[in-house]
Amino acid sequence: MTTHSLLLLPGDGIGPEIMASAGEVIDWFNRRAGGKLFTTETDLVGGAAYDAHGAAISEETMQKALAADAVLFGAVGGPKWDDVPYDVRPEAGLLRLRKDLQLFANLRPAICYAALADASSLKKELVEGLDILIVRELTGGVYFGEPKEIRDLGNGQKRAVDTQVYDTFEIERIARVAFDLARTRRNKVTSSEKRNVMKSGVLWKEVVERVREADYPDVELEHMLADNCGMQLVRRPKQFDVIVCDNLFGDMLSDVAAMLTGSLGMLPSASLGAPDPTTGRRKALYEPVHGSAPDITGTGRANPIAMIASFAMALRYSFGLVEEADLLDKAIATALDSGARTADIAPDGADTVGTEEMTAAIIAAL
Amino acid sequence: MTTHSLLLLPGDGIGPEIMASAGEVIDWFNRRAGGKLFTTETDLVGGAAYDAHGAAISEETMQKALAADAVLFGAVGGPKWDDVPYDVRPEAGLLRLRKDLQLFANLRPAICYAALADASSLKKELVEGLDILIVRELTGGVYFGEPKEIRDLGNGQKRAVDTQVYDTFEIERIARVAFDLARTRRNKVTSSEKRNVMKSGVLWKEVVERVREADYPDVELEHMLADNCGMQLVRRPKQFDVIVCDNLFGDMLSDVAAMLTGSLGMLPSASLGAPDPTTGRRKALYEPVHGSAPDITGTGRANPIAMIASFAMALRYSFGLVEEADLLDKAIATALDSGARTADIAPDGADTVGTEEMTAAIIAAL
Ligand SMILES: CC(C)[C@H](C(=O)O)[C@@H](O)C(=O)O
Ligand SMILES: CC(C)[C@H](C(=O)O)[C@@H](O)C(=O)O
Repeated sequence: MTTHSLLLLPGDGIGPEIMASAGEVIDWFNRRAGGKLFTTETDLVGGAAYDAHGAAISEETMQKALAADAVLFGAVGGPKWDDVPYDVRPEAGLLRLRKDLQLFANLRPAICYAALADASSLKKELVEGLDILIVRELTGGVYFGEPKEIRDLGNGQKRAVDTQVYDTFEIERIARVAFDLARTRRNKVTSSEKRNVMKSGVLWKEVVERVREADYPDVELEHMLADNCGMQLVRRPKQFDVIVCDNLFGDMLSDVAAMLTGSLGMLPSASLGAPDPTTGRRKALYEPVHGSAPDITGTGRANPIAMIASFAMALRYSFGLVEEADLLDKAIATALDSGARTADIAPDGADTVGTEEMTAAIIAAL
Repeated sequence: MTTHSLLLLPGDGIGPEIMASAGEVIDWFNRRAGGKLFTTETDLVGGAAYDAHGAAISEETMQKALAADAVLFGAVGGPKWDDVPYDVRPEAGLLRLRKDLQLFANLRPAICYAALADASSLKKELVEGLDILIVRELTGGVYFGEPKEIRDLGNGQKRAVDTQVYDTFEIERIARVAFDLARTRRNKVTSSEKRNVMKSGVLWKEVVERVREADYPDVELEHMLADNCGMQLVRRPKQFDVIVCDNLFGDMLSDVAAMLTGSLGMLPSASLGAPDPTTGRRKALYEPVHGSAPDITGTGRANPIAMIASFAMALRYSFGLVEEADLLDKAIATALDSGARTADIAPDGADTVGTEEMTAAIIAAL
């Protein structure tokens, strides 16, 4: 049996609670395999790492992340660390992982689970059956461009600068990921940028178009300004299949799309690197789309589904364990069909279950 | 009688059609005043100006804009000009007006007209009575920062760069506008940025907080990350009163907010400069939030309400004609209450009116 190594980084807030749920699911798959299909190690990231080491991720943890077959990540941040210095704020741990592991492709499905179409703030008919995949560039753009600084100009004035930078190759490789994935779905890519005000948008459109013409003429491609894309997501979300965009627009658009589904607490994401030229393996990190939810931390009410579904994505994308991934996704759907609802997805006044019961319901369905 | 000079810049697409409607309303107010309360001059901008002069706005038109008491702007752009050079693309005309007139404060109300609560893609109870004001910084940020360029790196690679820049004074003055307006409303400001990844977000939060502490301790202030703000707009839009944010986040968030209302074709906006230290007058441009709608151009189906409501904002903010502004806003509501609906706001299968009938209905209500 091939053993796959997982680094678990629960992080802050509800992170540890939902990671415990993922841990139970991992244990179940190990028992089923009758051996060590997965080995896990747990470490600190975010505010928890800052409290322990004064950095949002330690060098030692970074080494473990680089060595692991995949990283499962919970969530980082919270009011406790609102005033820590910029370079060691909780998010810096996540950003460093993305950058140093070169996880340039962030896959964010926005799926409306049938059982939850009523939970959306959108009218049911607009979101029922919704299945969008946002492919977000994750290691470039304004997140990492230099200069990124605050200068003191004297006389009480400061100047803050962030730099949006994209090179051709960065756009090319994320475009390929989007086109490849579109071929496994409804064969349509919407490329979103602000070419009417940003030079990076001009280059973005040019490169995406060139990649399509050269290698994906069979995939439908449309270009949509990012502001309009935000609008269209609200207006008629089912018009989309795959949306490809830069790091910052991807951040905004994927959050809007996730919220539309009424299933925010359910949505996983995968961040992938390039396949290794010799082994074909790619570095990968899997995390829920939702955040650390300080408001419900410690109450046992967090929805573990996004975290568990993130592990399902790891099964699929990192380990090629497609049958296992399908099994787990189906168990989640079964638990929902049986009526189990955490507070975030329950209709007003309905009975709710906590993190542990939801986890138990999924494991029972496995 | 004081005469107010208006420069009308209809622009492209449906721009000229809806500007004709505004023209009729202006004529009505002149007749009512029994004289030249308003003088108007009409000129080219956007693709129309490019076709005529090879620039998105001519120097002569810029001079007229600088001299006018207020500018009414229609919309610019369309597929015809998709491939014109970047510096003379239609949007460049609008951006130059904003920059050279120093219109740093963009006010974008997102209001759900009672008669239209059903037209939203959100559930009715979430948007009924919605009244948000987005205060967007309009002359700074990534829209104008330098460098903004595409460099050729050789070996087939290009590098595109855009620069987000904010100085203390730019954040300070837009924060003041937001706090002042909040005092005339529900007294709450949400300041939105990405301080967890952008230095401009760090400075933004710092300055907004300082302005509040010094001069607006009575106004409630909350800070919300821009991605979360996009989510919260979809989830529970009525939690907001005034949202203040930078140029790019304002572009995205105001479009999402506008679409939520179901009233996109109805929403006006005002772009204001600083009051002149001696005369107290501020440069101003008024425009609909919606775009040039090339798909319905020439069909006579465009909704003129956003354009007419933009003139109502001019009455209020540029000319202090509050009674007239109220009268016009009420006439719009009356026309809607009487059942007049252009296609964009009509329920499926319902009777619709065209641009001219809607304009006539509003003038009849005046
Ligand atoms: C936590 C934060 C740095 C992060 C981002 O902005 O990328 C988050 O919002 C996300 O979308 O994963
Ligand atoms: C036309 C375009 C340049 C403009 C912008 O991005 O500001 C528009 O989207 C707007 O919001 O007014």
